[in-house]
Order: sequence, then C-alpha cells, then structure tokens
Amino acid sequence: MFKDATTDEIDSALRKAWQAFHLYRKFSLKQRADFMKAIAVELDNTGDSLISTAMRETNLPEARLRGERARTIFQLNSYAEACVKGDWLEARIDTAIETKIPPKPDIRKMLVPLGPVVVFGASNFPLAYSTAGGDTACAFAAGCPVIVKAHPAHPDTSEQVAHAIKNAVQKCNMPDGVFQHIQGNSFEVGKALVMHPFTKAVGFTGSYTGGKQLYDWAQQRKEPIPVFAEMGSVNPVFLLPEKLSNEADTIAKLYAQSITVGVGQFCTNPGLLIGVDSESLDQFIIRLGKAIELIAPTPMLHQGIAKSFNEKRATALSQQGVKLIASSDSPANENEGLPTIAATDAEHFLNNPRLHQEVFGPYSLVVRCKDLQQMNEVAAKLEGQLTATLMATDDEVINNHALVEKIKNCCGRLILNGIPTGVEVCLSMQHGGPFPATTDSRFTSVGADGIKRFARPLAFQNWPNQLLPDELRNDNPLGIWRTVNNEFTKNKINNGDSK
Amino acid sequence: MFKDATTDEIDSALRKAWQAFHLYRKFSLKQRADFMKAIAVELDNTGDSLISTAMRETNLPEARLRGERARTIFQLNSYAEACVKGDWLEARIDTAIETKIPPKPDIRKMLVPLGPVVVFGASNFPLAYSTAGGDTACAFAAGCPVIVKAHPAHPDTSEQVAHAIKNAVQKCNMPDGVFQHIQGNSFEVGKALVMHPFTKAVGFTGSYTGGKQLYDWAQQRKEPIPVFAEMGSVNPVFLLPEKLSNEADTIAKLYAQSITVGVGQFCTNPGLLIGVDSESLDQFIIRLGKAIELIAPTPMLHQGIAKSFNEKRATALSQQGVKLIASSDSPANENEGLPTIAATDAEHFLNNPRLHQEVFGPYSLVVRCKDLQQMNEVAAKLEGQLTATLMATDDEVINNHALVEKIKNCCGRLILNGIPTGVEVCLSMQHGGPFPATTDSRFTSVGADGIKRFARPLAFQNWPNQLLPDELRNDNPLGIWRTVNNEFTKNKINNGDSK
Repeated sequence: MFKDATTDEIDSALRKAWQAFHLYRKFSLKQRADFMKAIAVELDNTGDSLISTAMRETNLPEARLRGERARTIFQLNSYAEACVKGDWLEARIDTAIETKIPPKPDIRKMLVPLGPVVVFGASNFPLAYSTAGGDTACAFAAGCPVIVKAHPAHPDTSEQVAHAIKNAVQKCNMPDGVFQHIQGNSFEVGKALVMHPFTKAVGFTGSYTGGKQLYDWAQQRKEPIPVFAEMGSVNPVFLLPEKLSNEADTIAKLYAQSITVGVGQFCTNPGLLIGVDSESLDQFIIRLGKAIELIAPTPMLHQGIAKSFNEKRATALSQQGVKLIASSDSPANENEGLPTIAATDAEHFLNNPRLHQEVFGPYSLVVRCKDLQQMNEVAAKLEGQLTATLMATDDEVINNHALVEKIKNCCGRLILNGIPTGVEVCLSMQHGGPFPATTDSRFTSVGADGIKRFARPLAFQNWPNQLLPDELRNDNPLGIWRTVNNEFTKNKINNGDSK
Repeated sequence: MFKDATTDEIDSALRKAWQAFHLYRKFSLKQRADFMKAIAVELDNTGDSLISTAMRETNLPEARLRGERARTIFQLNSYAEACVKGDWLEARIDTAIETKIPPKPDIRKMLVPLGPVVVFGASNFPLAYSTAGGDTACAFAAGCPVIVKAHPAHPDTSEQVAHAIKNAVQKCNMPDGVFQHIQGNSFEVGKALVMHPFTKAVGFTGSYTGGKQLYDWAQQRKEPIPVFAEMGSVNPVFLLPEKLSNEADTIAKLYAQSITVGVGQFCTNPGLLIGVDSESLDQFIIRLGKAIELIAPTPMLHQGIAKSFNEKRATALSQQGVKLIASSDSPANENEGLPTIAATDAEHFLNNPRLHQEVFGPYSLVVRCKDLQQMNEVAAKLEGQLTATLMATDDEVINNHALVEKIKNCCGRLILNGIPTGVEVCLSMQHGGPFPATTDSRFTSVGADGIKRFARPLAFQNWPNQLLPDELRNDNPLGIWRTVNNEFTKNKINNGDSK
C-alpha cells in the first residue's frame, strides 16, 4: 500500500520539476531522444517481474502485458526518432527584406516546451498509457519534465516503471526533477497537481468524469492551462444494407471479437452498431448474439470497473425500448465482465441520451433504423467520438454522401470496413476527437503529433545567426526540414538569402 | 445606430451557419482561396467611403487606415495562397504493411474544419483584426463559416466591410450562411454567440477582461470549445548595460516612437522598460523623457478607451514608488492620450502586481534594477507576454544566458535590438504567448499558422484510394507536401508503396 502524497510533497515535486525544466528544455533533441531510448532499454530490463506485478494488479493476461510493454518501448523509441527528426518543431524562417518599406526583419519560429506536465496514468493501459506511456514520451520529446500520478489500480506496476525511468535519468545524467512519481488515491492529490502554478499542462486517459473534472480545475486556475483528456467514446459502427447483406456472418464474427477483446476495456471499443431494419440486420443480430454467447466472461481490470460495468449495463438494459439480445452462456464471476449485446430502435435511441453513453466493458447496443434517412438522423445526433466505422460497399459510400459527411464530422478516426479496436502507433494516427471524446479535438494522444500538445511556438526576430538555436541557424546543423521563405526545405540558407 | 441582435436572430444566424458548414467544408482549397481573394477585391473596392467612415468612427488617420486596409487585403491573399498550398493540412500518410502481425492498415490524416467560428472585432484594428481580418480569413481558409460580432466602436465600418464580404459570397456562389454579421453592444449578445451549441470556436482580439469572459463562457458550455483570445500584454524591453551605454540616445528616440505610435494602441506596445541602475540608464531616462515631451497627444480610438487610459494611467502613477518622469508638453484634449513615461524601482515592481498590468495607450514604465541579478528576478516574475525585447550586445546575450532563457519562457516573440510594434504578416510570425497574453500559447493569430486554430485532424483508416479526399490520394492531385511513411514529399504514392 502506498500513502497519498501530501500537499507539501506535491508542492516540492512541482518546484523540483520547475527547476529541472530550466535545464531540460535546453537539452538538445539528440539528448532528449537518447534519454527516451534509455527509458525504453530500462523498461525492457524490468523483465518478468514487471509482467507478474502488472498481471496481479490488472488481471490482464501475460501475453497482452508483454505486448503492451513492447508497444510502450516502441512508442518511446519512435517518438525519440521523431524528436530528433524535428518535423514537430515546425521550424519556419522568413529572412529579412531590407528593401521593403518598412524593412522586413528576419523572423524565425520553432516550438518550445510549455513546462512541467502532469500525467495521469490510465487504468486500462497500465504500461502504454501510464507511467512511461505515450503522454510521458511526448512530454519528454517536447522538452518538458513530467510528474506522473500513478493510477491507484496499479500502484506497484507504476512504481516499477518509475524506477526504470529513474535509472535512465541517472544513466543519462538528467536533472533529478525531470521525472517524478506521485501516488494518490484521493481527489485532493489530483486537484493539487492540476492547480499547482508550476504545472503547465496535463495529460489524461480515462473516464469522462475524471477527465472533465481535471479540465474544469485547469480552467479555474488563475492561469488556465491546456489539458488533453482522452475520455473514451462509444465508437459507433454504421452497417450499410448492401455490405451487411453480403457479409452479415463475417461482420458478426469480426465484431463479436472487437466488442469483447480485452474484456471490452478499450477506449475504441465499438459500443454502438447502427443498422437499417431488414432481414440481413435480423440475421446479423442473431449471428452476433450466437458469437457472443460463446465468449466466456473474463476478469476486468479491477473491482471498481467491474462494479461500474455491471451498474451501467443494468441501467442501459433497463431503459425503455432496450431489449437484451444475448450474453455469454457462461455465468460471470465477481469482477468478470459478461459479454452482452442489446438492441433498440432509432426512435428510442434518438430520444434517450443515456443510450448514447459508454458502458465501459464488453457491451454493445444495436440500433435499428427504419431507413437510411433515420440513420442520417442518428449520425447527426451523435456526440464527439474517437472513432467511427463504416461498413459499406464502395457504392454505398458514394451514394450516401450526406451520411458519410455527418460521420466524418463527429469523429477523429474514420474506419472503412474494419474494426476500431487496435490503435496503430504512427504519425498518421489520430487518437482524439470532438468533445466529449477529448477536451481538445485539435490534438492526438497517439503518434508523434502528440508531442505538439506540450509545446508552443516562439519567434526570434532580428537575431544574428550565431545567437540562434541550432534548429534555426542558416547552416541547418541538425539537418531538419524547415519552411524557409514559404518553401519546405532541408537546405542551408545562403548569406545572400538571409540579408 | 444599430440595434443589438436579439437571441432569436443569433439563434437563426447560427443555424444558418451550421447548414452552410455542411456545404462550405466540402469546397476545395482552391474554391476557398478564390472566395478569400474575391473578398480582398471587394475590400479594395470599398474605396474612399470605407476610409472616411473608419476615420470618423476610430479617429485613426487616413494613411494608417489605408495602410491597414492594404494589410487586410494582403492577409486575405496570403492566407488564400497558404490555403491552396496546403502545408497547414498536415497531411500524413502511412501505407499498409500487410506482412506485419497484426497487419498494419493504411491510415491517412489531414486537418478538417471545426465548424462555425464566432469572430469578435477588435477596436484597435478596425480592418485588419475585425470583420474581414485575420481571424475571419483563417476560419475561411480552414473551411469554417464565420459570424462576426461587430465592434460597437466602429459599427458602420464593420457594416461596410460585411457588405464587401457579402458581395464576394454572391459572386463566388458561396452558401449564404458562410458569413454573417451581428451588431451588438451588450454583454448578452457576446454571451449568446459563445454559448450557442452550433458555435465551434471563437476568435477574439481585445482586452483581458473581454477575452477572459468569453473564454470562461466557452468552458462553461456543455461542450467546451476552443477560444483564441489575444488579450494584449505589457511587452517588456530589457535594456542591457553595455548596449544602453553605447546607444542610450538612439534607443531613447526609437522607443519614444514605439511607445507613442498609434497613440500607444497596439497589443505589442512596449509598456515596460527594464534597466540596471547606472549613469547610462539615467541618461536614457532623461533622453526618453525629452523625446516624449515633444510628442503631441492625439485622439484615441474612442471615448471609452481614452477614459480607461486616463484612469489606468492615474492609478499607475499613484502607486507607491512610482514617479512621473515626463509627459507631453502639449496638454491633452478630451479623448486624447497623453504620452507618458514613469519610473519605479524593481523592488516596488516585484511587490506590486498592479504595476505589471497594461495601461493601454501611450504609457511606459521604466523599472530600475539594482543589478543584473535583480533583472533576472523581474524576468522570472513576469506574466505571459506577446513579445519581449532584448536590447543587448552579442556578448551580453551570451553572458546572460539565464536571463535570456527566462525571457524566452515568458513570451511568444523575442526581438533582439528592435521594437515590438510592427507585426509582420508571415509564416514565421508568432502573435500569441503564454497566458494572460492569450488563452492558448500553442496558437498564433497572425500568419498562416493561425488557420490551425480552427481545424482538427481526421484520420481515414483502410479507405480505398478512389474514396479518399484529393488531399490524401495516391496520385496527390493537389501537389501538396505530405508526410508519407515518415518522409516529407510531394511525390505520388506507387501502388507498390500503398500495399
């Protein structure tokens, strides 16, 4: 058992982070990247011990946790590479034009770090979105110190990962305060971290209630700060008639899998399947139900999540017009999530906002629309989503333009003929979306673009070449891509150009 | 006289904008750019009539207003070019890797518009940061409809510019609701615009009180929305000893000009001059005072601003330890701003937050530090700023590393040996800065990067080439820069690459 950090401890952590910020932000991109790679090595060194601790604390199976650690290591290494590559810096140079009236000065801009970032570990990704996860890696790449608030559901796992990071801090001669680890189960710890004047940004992955609370605190500060809270979503799947009639069976099997993978505990879990009344929709529902019946319940992350799943599932099933279609044939033990499919019609769905809410776990609701027109109405009424999926033939995409546009407008990632679970770590990934999926749809928490959450542009006007940061010097010593006089280039700037 | 828009009128405007959004966002980059260029032409066609209206409403001189209109036209044209060029789209493509386990899907991401943007006109830039100003141009480039709330200090000017935009709407066959113009003097009009569920972002340039209020409303919505409020700053100038002793006279003349240009009514007006006690600082103050005495007061934008300047000036001068150094030899008539220099010592400055506040108008406070150490303390205690300026020799920049870092950390643009007034419209410009200079230091309101305030990434996963938007197709029909498999390129993607 870990004790909650006291207010004094939190204050002292932030002071230390603030001091470290003044050192760490001056470290070169290469030094930051080497540090991140060293964390990856140390994380790999945690061996079986970390896996067994995480298994005990999260009920997740060994293979998943080994995979998640590998993913975390991949994130650290790939964001380290992105850090050095420097595209994220958005280096822009406009050289002086002395003949202009008045003369145009030399101006050069690049992103610089915001300051200490507080990261709240996620319960459902004890490694990849927690202590050394995506937010931490992005903040380090940006040049920001990090204070991690361990998730109370896996404090030991978090402690072991923190230890690995601290090893890397020492080996790379980083300032002590560049990484700190705080335990806390109470409301007050989170609040004190967000409200501290030296906290300059917050990263969070978790529930709407938690994320929105952090966001509201951050806005109530004397100096509001950016909070990127990824708060999950229902990830609607639109089943278009022709596609469904062609492949009802395949789609049913695919989705039975996607709905229950990881006991449904993914932010991108498909919680809503929207179809048009037809024989093939009936067939699909029957087949999906049969597939779900065959999937045995497995333990959820922790008691709190299982309790919440059961309550939300019961509430959802008790809503007017909602019918239970199928649940797993095997009974669920305590702490297990019972795979469940329910159905309702679009009219009930449109009139009951409760049915739009996430039931975090292996639950999905089929919404029956009378026709495509009603499917359009459903799409127009959906809240912001991390993902939306369209199961459709090419012709159906083309012929349902208005529907497709509505779906685009509600989500951060639009999948065609696939499943939303499984989030690739790559530059083109968007893991974000309109509120309430996240608190700022303009950013992502997966992929190297996530670095930009924690950085801001700083322009240098009229600085002589020798006093500029390397990123902006004429000879481009770092060899990065820059926009020079409106053109992307890696070229050096000749003296002539900069006059 | 214009009547305030009613709540019903505002609701109907936002409904119209929401409908227009579904059309306008599908318009190609070229169509958006042509529309913006057409606005530029129509703005040019406003001729002498617009200038005389603006002169009457703002007291600004003819040459300034003609220059400002030319700047506004330049902004529209240059953001139109940036719109078509498409760098701002941040197109990212990662092609599929089918041999990966599990297979990596094809993912392609680009920025898409947020939705209707409400723009609040600025009093101090009746053209360049008002009705057809930077925020409006950025929103149109992003693909967002705009609702402008006219500034009540120049409603006729705003109406004429709105008319020019509406001409362009017609000539370009744009949907009616793509641009709407709302008059309003009351608190309620602003609130209704920000709180409307179809409003998806807000742009504002003005006072801290106004900007912060809009921001707070936006955060209190059921669905919080991004507000970019540029709220001005004191724009500190750090006078380093050697530089000052070399050029006290030149710097004094330069700054007497920068402090009083446009009756001090620029967001980047230098309101704070920070030096180290020395004979050259004394000399500088005397010379600055003499230069200020020679500058005749001129009328401010409107009665309210003049009243506020006089009150804030009086309050600033009445603070303990503040001494009036010089003011214009000519008396100020009603509505005129009296050029004024005051001085205090760093101790008083450090202990009195009132002295950190902007006195919007031709007023500047000299802060005398005992030594460079104390100048460091002042730099560390400064709030967020749009700009900071360093007057220093190269050696002084190198030898005062800690000071320079502190200054970097508080501002959006750092000028070396120049003046902060005069904001170039170019890609490298950063017109933004840490709170309270703006509500989000990660964005700018000048330069084409300002488009990104009103757009968000949308990823397409597993879409066949023929169904993708042009921006993301294999053959790159728009010829834009894209990051394909982590490399910047304008190249087409071969079928082989995308498999």
